[in-house]
Amino acid sequence: MSGSVYGNIFKISTWGESHGRGIGVVIDGCPAGIRLEDADIQRDLDRRKPGTGKYTTKRSESDKAEILSGVFEGKTTGTPISIAIFNEDQRSKDYSAISDVFRPGHADFGFESKYGFRDYRGGGRSSARETAARVAAGAVARRLLEEIGISIAAYTFSINNIQISKDNFDLEQRFLNPLCMPDSEAAERAAKLLDEAMANADSTGGVVQCEVTGLKPGIGEPVFDKLDASIGKAVLSIGAVKGIEFGAGFEASKMYGSENNDSFYIKDGAVKKHTNNSGGVLGGMSDGDKLVFRAAFKPTPSIARPQTTANNKGEDIKIEIKGRHDPIVVARAVVVVEAMTAVTLADLVLMNMCAKIENVKKIYTDI
Amino acid sequence: MSGSVYGNIFKISTWGESHGRGIGVVIDGCPAGIRLEDADIQRDLDRRKPGTGKYTTKRSESDKAEILSGVFEGKTTGTPISIAIFNEDQRSKDYSAISDVFRPGHADFGFESKYGFRDYRGGGRSSARETAARVAAGAVARRLLEEIGISIAAYTFSINNIQISKDNFDLEQRFLNPLCMPDSEAAERAAKLLDEAMANADSTGGVVQCEVTGLKPGIGEPVFDKLDASIGKAVLSIGAVKGIEFGAGFEASKMYGSENNDSFYIKDGAVKKHTNNSGGVLGGMSDGDKLVFRAAFKPTPSIARPQTTANNKGEDIKIEIKGRHDPIVVARAVVVVEAMTAVTLADLVLMNMCAKIENVKKIYTDI
Amino acid sequence: MSGSVYGNIFKISTWGESHGRGIGVVIDGCPAGIRLEDADIQRDLDRRKPGTGKYTTKRSESDKAEILSGVFEGKTTGTPISIAIFNEDQRSKDYSAISDVFRPGHADFGFESKYGFRDYRGGGRSSARETAARVAAGAVARRLLEEIGISIAAYTFSINNIQISKDNFDLEQRFLNPLCMPDSEAAERAAKLLDEAMANADSTGGVVQCEVTGLKPGIGEPVFDKLDASIGKAVLSIGAVKGIEFGAGFEASKMYGSENNDSFYIKDGAVKKHTNNSGGVLGGMSDGDKLVFRAAFKPTPSIARPQTTANNKGEDIKIEIKGRHDPIVVARAVVVVEAMTAVTLADLVLMNMCAKIENVKKIYTDI
Amino acid sequence: MSGSVYGNIFKISTWGESHGRGIGVVIDGCPAGIRLEDADIQRDLDRRKPGTGKYTTKRSESDKAEILSGVFEGKTTGTPISIAIFNEDQRSKDYSAISDVFRPGHADFGFESKYGFRDYRGGGRSSARETAARVAAGAVARRLLEEIGISIAAYTFSINNIQISKDNFDLEQRFLNPLCMPDSEAAERAAKLLDEAMANADSTGGVVQCEVTGLKPGIGEPVFDKLDASIGKAVLSIGAVKGIEFGAGFEASKMYGSENNDSFYIKDGAVKKHTNNSGGVLGGMSDGDKLVFRAAFKPTPSIARPQTTANNKGEDIKIEIKGRHDPIVVARAVVVVEAMTAVTLADLVLMNMCAKIENVKKIYTDI
Repeated sequence: MSGSVYGNIFKISTWGESHGRGIGVVIDGCPAGIRLEDADIQRDLDRRKPGTGKYTTKRSESDKAEILSGVFEGKTTGTPISIAIFNEDQRSKDYSAISDVFRPGHADFGFESKYGFRDYRGGGRSSARETAARVAAGAVARRLLEEIGISIAAYTFSINNIQISKDNFDLEQRFLNPLCMPDSEAAERAAKLLDEAMANADSTGGVVQCEVTGLKPGIGEPVFDKLDASIGKAVLSIGAVKGIEFGAGFEASKMYGSENNDSFYIKDGAVKKHTNNSGGVLGGMSDGDKLVFRAAFKPTPSIARPQTTANNKGEDIKIEIKGRHDPIVVARAVVVVEAMTAVTLADLVLMNMCAKIENVKKIYTDI
Repeated sequence: MSGSVYGNIFKISTWGESHGRGIGVVIDGCPAGIRLEDADIQRDLDRRKPGTGKYTTKRSESDKAEILSGVFEGKTTGTPISIAIFNEDQRSKDYSAISDVFRPGHADFGFESKYGFRDYRGGGRSSARETAARVAAGAVARRLLEEIGISIAAYTFSINNIQISKDNFDLEQRFLNPLCMPDSEAAERAAKLLDEAMANADSTGGVVQCEVTGLKPGIGEPVFDKLDASIGKAVLSIGAVKGIEFGAGFEASKMYGSENNDSFYIKDGAVKKHTNNSGGVLGGMSDGDKLVFRAAFKPTPSIARPQTTANNKGEDIKIEIKGRHDPIVVARAVVVVEAMTAVTLADLVLMNMCAKIENVKKIYTDI
Repeated sequence: MSGSVYGNIFKISTWGESHGRGIGVVIDGCPAGIRLEDADIQRDLDRRKPGTGKYTTKRSESDKAEILSGVFEGKTTGTPISIAIFNEDQRSKDYSAISDVFRPGHADFGFESKYGFRDYRGGGRSSARETAARVAAGAVARRLLEEIGISIAAYTFSINNIQISKDNFDLEQRFLNPLCMPDSEAAERAAKLLDEAMANADSTGGVVQCEVTGLKPGIGEPVFDKLDASIGKAVLSIGAVKGIEFGAGFEASKMYGSENNDSFYIKDGAVKKHTNNSGGVLGGMSDGDKLVFRAAFKPTPSIARPQTTANNKGEDIKIEIKGRHDPIVVARAVVVVEAMTAVTLADLVLMNMCAKIENVKKIYTDI
Repeated sequence: MSGSVYGNIFKISTWGESHGRGIGVVIDGCPAGIRLEDADIQRDLDRRKPGTGKYTTKRSESDKAEILSGVFEGKTTGTPISIAIFNEDQRSKDYSAISDVFRPGHADFGFESKYGFRDYRGGGRSSARETAARVAAGAVARRLLEEIGISIAAYTFSINNIQISKDNFDLEQRFLNPLCMPDSEAAERAAKLLDEAMANADSTGGVVQCEVTGLKPGIGEPVFDKLDASIGKAVLSIGAVKGIEFGAGFEASKMYGSENNDSFYIKDGAVKKHTNNSGGVLGGMSDGDKLVFRAAFKPTPSIARPQTTANNKGEDIKIEIKGRHDPIVVARAVVVVEAMTAVTLADLVLMNMCAKIENVKKIYTDI
């Protein structure tokens, strides 16, 4: 229970360090009969691959995913799906400069306090590389959700103080510019801001927004495993996330009930809402509307300029973090947010299967 | 797995509806030997009790907690602690006006979609009354944490656009004014705003801030069960919460790395941080600093003014929600936030027991 | 995680001590829409009640079950079902004679080693009374299973060396004689053996057999959560059980493959087996045949004759256990075995809901 | 939740099919600081390897284990330990003869009923090869247990009707004869019986006994996660196991309380027992004595002689199972029983860490 297992029915178990043999995931509880191939996973992995743009690190990894089990004749069999991504760039470097240092903004001090020592090579288990295993699991969950018409799209909502504009919104743009911003004009301005940050040996933060369509009402479990609480945990478990909000979010705290309440109405026999301040979730269950949330990412903590800090010998020191690091994490994080959302929704959709005895009768009778 | 069980080692299972026989919680996994009595639970329950102030509902419940098991001669025995709060105000009312209605901002539509029907009396399981069981569990967790020097204090940070000021901050004030604001001046302005809202048959939202002291570094499990992710789920699972942020939170997304990074230094041989933008958590583990987070609450959805909505017969209708309802939930929610934080920290502290083989040797040798 | 929570989807959390306020259970994850009333639970509870026959203790408890939540208008709502059985016979006795003694065959020494002290009143949490909460949970699970045509019948298979005979088998007899033996002639002989044991201030053991009909093939999860492994844990967790075997069981270890293999054949288009050495389970999944297993119970450890033992002061002592105790546990254990079987099967049937993506489509489409 | 994840704190997740890319396991929750290398795992794997003796299949696999993560500089880091065993013997064979057949005594019918289709190559996930991943996990758990002085030894107790004798008992013999019998004379007789069975194109069953020393009192959680219940599930989840019994086991059902009760006494200040009918477990917790249990294995279902059965087209057919198969599974199963015991004990020892608040104080104070 060191925290690398996630989910109740659709349960994932990830493993791997930045500079070890590789990273991977085992998925237990994926239903049988879903079409799945290596390419489904590779498609998402390629979206978070380093070395693909000006604003991502130059590490040359092909990040090639291999399905090792659980798929037969192109379909999931109901048994565990093991996916591995072996490290190619595994040459041993000289880590003596950072092996005893607590880098500001990093997990080094926590790891050493907790376990007594740590795998300091490239951040070990707390490297951003860990998220590749999440993306692989997310790709499988996405295939499951596609079978029932649920689709997920995340994108960069803001970088520092530059935010996308509704007037200029174009969802396809998130695949067309390296910052995954669905507003080409904002993307241009953000690129300039990042160029400056890089010139200053600095980094910055941003916000990712995620939208889910096709979610029917009643998904999410009342009380502790609420839809928003579950998504919240999933997304807050991504490295640099410092906050999450649903629908009107923090703005709702400044509104009046008469403004914030989304009134229901009937359209073509179906229950709809006039507004979506709820962000698609009421009482912890989906309300049939689009699920909308935003996650705040802090600036990349690895910056090139000199910093003061402490080491594990009790000394105050100065460090300069070598190597090239992303000046912003949100662009590569977009697909990670989608992945954690997909894994969580797959789990909640499966948990919802047993909500009514009518459902149980329906399935058991057909065996 | 309908979502009313929470925690891994310190595991709570809550039950009960607003207008049924009562509500309660069973706690499995509380260590033996902790001094515990009914009064420890009552103290916290009294803080969220309805009918105690101008801004809370008039329901006259004594909310009396009874420990039914797991305590012997004033100490926990290691076996499950069952706590019940029986409903006194259980007379049957006429619910025909709302039994088929989907109230705006409420869980009615979700419940009916999920389960096919619902206990419509006073909101059933989705009533705010459900949180009393959380508070009872939180009181036990708080006793556990006190034994090792961890303490938790939450308070109202803002109501609508009125925010507490650092200059006027006085933590004790949270017990002295009915809005739990640690700033008497802000509390006065907020009271006026609420008076106006009530006059308009309206409600509003607010933000709760929570601080934890005594948390040593390394608490929280890397990857999925991170400290912030776990607290995030716990707090987002409280009824009206729409967002959560840690430390600098959403503001961090607008900062540069050089500003946001908290540099470490050595003081009296211990590792400290100059600033606390992290909010006490790095890489999902406590960093030895104060844990700080804020949760945004939406306005109370039950408002007295007429609203349009739909019912389960597919009709557009008008409703007026009868009875008196809190114009704001944050004041009573403060202790609920503390409770969910306490339960989560108790669990993470226990999970951390097995981090090192040295720990295991230390305990096993002593048996 | 002190071990009082059981199940994955149909999850039960029991609480209570022999001489505390009462005992009970909270069931989370029971599907909505199942007809349920107090009487359904009372029926099973009455079968394990003390004081009903010559071979059971004289404790006069009405063992009245009360459903406190999760049922509305006679049907389960999908929210937690809390059931309590309050103790009536709660007068405080003088326990000084056993408070520091490790009774032979009892859990006293384990409890004291583990927790440092124990609730010694009537065995505390390790009293047989704890099983009443299991029976209450089992009654709810039984209602769920009835809805899909699964039924469970356990009975006394043997007492000491007296075993039921196939020639004299009559399932109804299990309700007609106080030893729950479906063979009136064997029951008579066993009664004599027990009379002698009681005359000798002694007790004896026995075996319970359980049969489940209506179980379709494929229930049980391959690898760790196999049908037999799950039932095995459930039944071995009942106080005095020392062994369990399925189908041919230990005898299978003495057979040849050609004898033990049950060959399949087709009857009316359905797959059947000529024999049932498997006991209805192959590869951890039901094979469509009757599920059959046997559990061995040790003799009641509380016997009236003097015994030597040790106490927690490190002294060798002599004890005489006062009060009347059952000379055999199997008769009252029969319904406990059914209960643990019901709870386990309910859970596995619900887990099986997500085996195929076709199932998921079928349910999700209908929302 | 397809049942391939096991454990609460020491949590293992296995994957892989007989004729896929390989098999493996991810272990989450292993404490940091335990010395571990590939050789520790290989040692146990070699004990269950096929092709090593006359009574095991001729499949030529080197079964080479590779640790892919979680170990740094020869010690566990506290992060997930991923171990893979890649299949070498992966050439595609012609499975058309069995792809639609329900082999007697096998899981084929269950798999097809549950999932709609199955990976029929060499039994897929239900192949005995699956147990190699358990053995790998067991080797890690064994290392953990060694650190605190717990050791596990299983051996063949009987084959068909040939049982080891106390007079001739020699534990070392289990490594010296191919049947793992700690009685060389019984091993010789069993070998003859197996030669005959093979000559008859038949197989037979047997019993494995397992002994654990170094287990202090109080390990195991009362009520559902009892020591014996947990071991019971673990061992019953091994392919061909049909029964398990602890201490006197089924014989206890024929004993009187006065015979079966193990009386306690004091020796050198410690609590001891005169006899061990309990098999080292009372009330679900270890009692300080040696843990002893036996598991019954059915005969290998794959036998060379012709059998009648059914296929998935609804036809009665005759089959002859090709290839060489072990005439007995117990010899190779001995190390699998040890592995499942080790994994379960590691988990229960870690769960016991939080039994007392004194333990929590001791560890938290030292951070």
